[in-house]
Amino acid sequence: MPWQIPVNTDAPTEPVTEEQVHAIHDGAMRILEEIGIEFLNDEARDILRGAGCELSPGATNVRMDREFVMEKLRLAPAEFTITPRNPEHRIPIGGRYMVFGNVSSPPNCSDLDRGRRVGDHESYRDLIKLTQYFNCIHFAGGYPVEPVDIHASVRHLDCLYDKLTLTDKVAHAYSLGSTRVEDVMEMVRIAGGLSDEEFEATPRMYTNINSSSPLKHDWPMLDGALRLALRGQPTIVTPFTLAGAMAPVTLPGAVAQFLAEGLSALVLLQCARPGVPCGIGSFTSNVDMRTGSPAFGTPEYLRATQISGQMARFYGLPLRASNACAANCPYAQAAWESAFSLWAAVSAGVNMVYHAAGWLEGGLCASYEKFVMDCETLQQIITYLKPISVTEDDIAVDAVREVGQSGHFFGCQHTQDRYESAFYAPFLSDWSNFENWQERGSVDTPHRANLLWKKILAEFEAPPMDVAIEEELREFVERRKREGGAATDF
Amino acid sequence: MPWQIPVNTDAPTEPVTEEQVHAIHDGAMRILEEIGIEFLNDEARDILRGAGCELSPGATNVRMDREFVMEKLRLAPAEFTITPRNPEHRIPIGGRYMVFGNVSSPPNCSDLDRGRRVGDHESYRDLIKLTQYFNCIHFAGGYPVEPVDIHASVRHLDCLYDKLTLTDKVAHAYSLGSTRVEDVMEMVRIAGGLSDEEFEATPRMYTNINSSSPLKHDWPMLDGALRLALRGQPTIVTPFTLAGAMAPVTLPGAVAQFLAEGLSALVLLQCARPGVPCGIGSFTSNVDMRTGSPAFGTPEYLRATQISGQMARFYGLPLRASNACAANCPYAQAAWESAFSLWAAVSAGVNMVYHAAGWLEGGLCASYEKFVMDCETLQQIITYLKPISVTEDDIAVDAVREVGQSGHFFGCQHTQDRYESAFYAPFLSDWSNFENWQERGSVDTPHRANLLWKKILAEFEAPPMDVAIEEELREFVERRKREGGAATDF
Repeated sequence: MPWQIPVNTDAPTEPVTEEQVHAIHDGAMRILEEIGIEFLNDEARDILRGAGCELSPGATNVRMDREFVMEKLRLAPAEFTITPRNPEHRIPIGGRYMVFGNVSSPPNCSDLDRGRRVGDHESYRDLIKLTQYFNCIHFAGGYPVEPVDIHASVRHLDCLYDKLTLTDKVAHAYSLGSTRVEDVMEMVRIAGGLSDEEFEATPRMYTNINSSSPLKHDWPMLDGALRLALRGQPTIVTPFTLAGAMAPVTLPGAVAQFLAEGLSALVLLQCARPGVPCGIGSFTSNVDMRTGSPAFGTPEYLRATQISGQMARFYGLPLRASNACAANCPYAQAAWESAFSLWAAVSAGVNMVYHAAGWLEGGLCASYEKFVMDCETLQQIITYLKPISVTEDDIAVDAVREVGQSGHFFGCQHTQDRYESAFYAPFLSDWSNFENWQERGSVDTPHRANLLWKKILAEFEAPPMDVAIEEELREFVERRKREGGAATDF
Repeated sequence: MPWQIPVNTDAPTEPVTEEQVHAIHDGAMRILEEIGIEFLNDEARDILRGAGCELSPGATNVRMDREFVMEKLRLAPAEFTITPRNPEHRIPIGGRYMVFGNVSSPPNCSDLDRGRRVGDHESYRDLIKLTQYFNCIHFAGGYPVEPVDIHASVRHLDCLYDKLTLTDKVAHAYSLGSTRVEDVMEMVRIAGGLSDEEFEATPRMYTNINSSSPLKHDWPMLDGALRLALRGQPTIVTPFTLAGAMAPVTLPGAVAQFLAEGLSALVLLQCARPGVPCGIGSFTSNVDMRTGSPAFGTPEYLRATQISGQMARFYGLPLRASNACAANCPYAQAAWESAFSLWAAVSAGVNMVYHAAGWLEGGLCASYEKFVMDCETLQQIITYLKPISVTEDDIAVDAVREVGQSGHFFGCQHTQDRYESAFYAPFLSDWSNFENWQERGSVDTPHRANLLWKKILAEFEAPPMDVAIEEELREFVERRKREGGAATDF
């Protein structure tokens, strides 16, 4: 499937009324006004104090009144674009646009040949290659698996070198303190062949930060996000508000808390750099009340995401969500939970879908086969979102007349003129009948996916990069490694 | 999950504009006015001629003008109920209601122990028991598998005896000529302990008929539907308009033809018995253009179903669709195709979902495991459709205040008061972490479903039935068998 940016023109599903949207907003504002959010970062508190938040010296809890919050949120653009080193892979964020990114941050990975194992550099590179290969993946999110065989002080250097040379799509930086994100910004600048001014003129990459729910923002994430903001680069703030665990058991309560946490960090970023692009990430789901395990793709996840969509539109902010599941193997449960998550994303009007391909086990494992399977369903979503033509030719009364009551449409001119592009043709789904399927070995979906990723990796060619740029990138990585990389003491 | 009728209050997804709805309607009307539909049934043609359709003697092609069509369609009720022998299992059809039925009519069945095989009486009874067991299945549709070991002349007698004794839900009769449906109507009357007048006073059962696309209605189906109509029983008309095969390759064209075929039969029924309850069934999907194989749960299926929903609301008719897939085994592809089909049903505002549990292979196989897996997702859809409460208590600012920045919501009173009913608890999905899942044998979804259906069948108890009624039913079956059952010469 060629590169394309889907535009979601479906009216979003809105499970709560406009009045209820205001009530949830009021709840979020009351949390910010009456309870407050802990900002465990001196610089962040100084910025907020400077912007007028009342905050006694030494105190970490910040309260904000709603006028202040709304005034700052109005500075955030409703839409923006991020331009990677290949400008053809520019992505619009916000509005009706919908873009997909690879699974991010699992500590483990698995495939049908080698089973489940701790992530390493090789599997990281494999999954980055799949990220580049599939045009339905629009951005290279976090590490598709944590390469734990690379020391944490230099992991970002090796990982970003791979990401920037093996892909030419928008890259993400982990906001784990300032050193790492500054290294990554420098690498993205080099990879794009940009001056400092060019880098800072428009979004070139992004980060995602999470609050430490309930009601807390930790030092490293705020530190990283502030570094990006000061250079005009976007941050998505994604509270991980599991209803019944880190947030109220009721969906409106979990969403109100998600908003209070998320909006407070966006306010900080707008204070630090007015107008900096940003977005809010919905990660509200429920837990299994018997075990506390998180669940995804559930009825509650669907509704929480849709309500979050209503709230994001209320605030005029781009919305991020995920293609998530709780299943432990890439079989039926994973498939329906992911399909329900995609339904949530489409019906909520989500703009950025994280973890769109490869996620298993509530995010603890990246599956090679699931990556390929998810790309099949993402391509179907992209096809679903294409506009439908309803001309007189499409209504086709003349073709119906021609075929009459005893003919067949395969052969008629109306079909012949359109059959090559009329329908989505899957690369993974098997639509053959049982006998043909059995004759070919009764291969199920994950095993078909297994053959495919091996072929893709065997034939993979990295996107072209100017030799001098690659050299500069390599030298940067080597120098920063000699300098010891980033501190790992937090 | 207790018995309940979901009410779908989501605004339907409407991929075409109001103007385009009128254009598709115009296409359907032009097919009826300019091309016509073959009615291969003398009685049907006599009724239509009597109602004013111009039709030369001996000709089978019937044209109808749009004023006539719309006048007759206005007689059809927008909503009705069907009451089975257990009135607590009454189902509303139309409006915002959504009800689910078992898979119907596959020639084959399969389970993980015995593999795939031709359907027989035992597997028919097994699947009927599953139909009764799960409260998320609201009606007993067609035979969940064809019991080919029972002779076709008496199959309806044995099957309906089983259906009416092993379930107390709404039953379906195949419209294969008049003898069969008259036998079934008599059996439903007996099972309900009803007089003829009581049976005819309100819907007690239903049938589904298909056109023989393109543009043809065969004798037996019309014959059966007319028999039901004359006794006030509802018919759903479901053209099987596969785009690119039996219908135009363009979705608006396939929908226009589906409407022309479907509406023409509904007009016939309204001529035969003005005001008789009826509905229209959408079965428009696409084929694999390389092989001609039908595909389901595709982007095109989603859009065709949603457009059909717009058209059904335009005509004020209840809409039927399906939970369909093309996959050959109950694994990932089956799960995502079925999830997309359910998304189509919810977003189209479908009222009756046929084949909601157990369907595989484009309808050629009923899977025991898929039946159980589908019931898991149906329960999730039913939960999804429950209204969301957004009171001040639900927004939960006080609970957020109580838990503060370092607490956890598991223990707080707000959670304790709600945790038992806050979230859907799955009976099949495994949300445990990988280590626990592995320790318990890494059992995947179909194998968990396999254990469940065995337990359900082992413990199955038929719903109570008055001894005299069961005796009367058995005597009816025995008498009709002695008489030779139904002719099998068509």
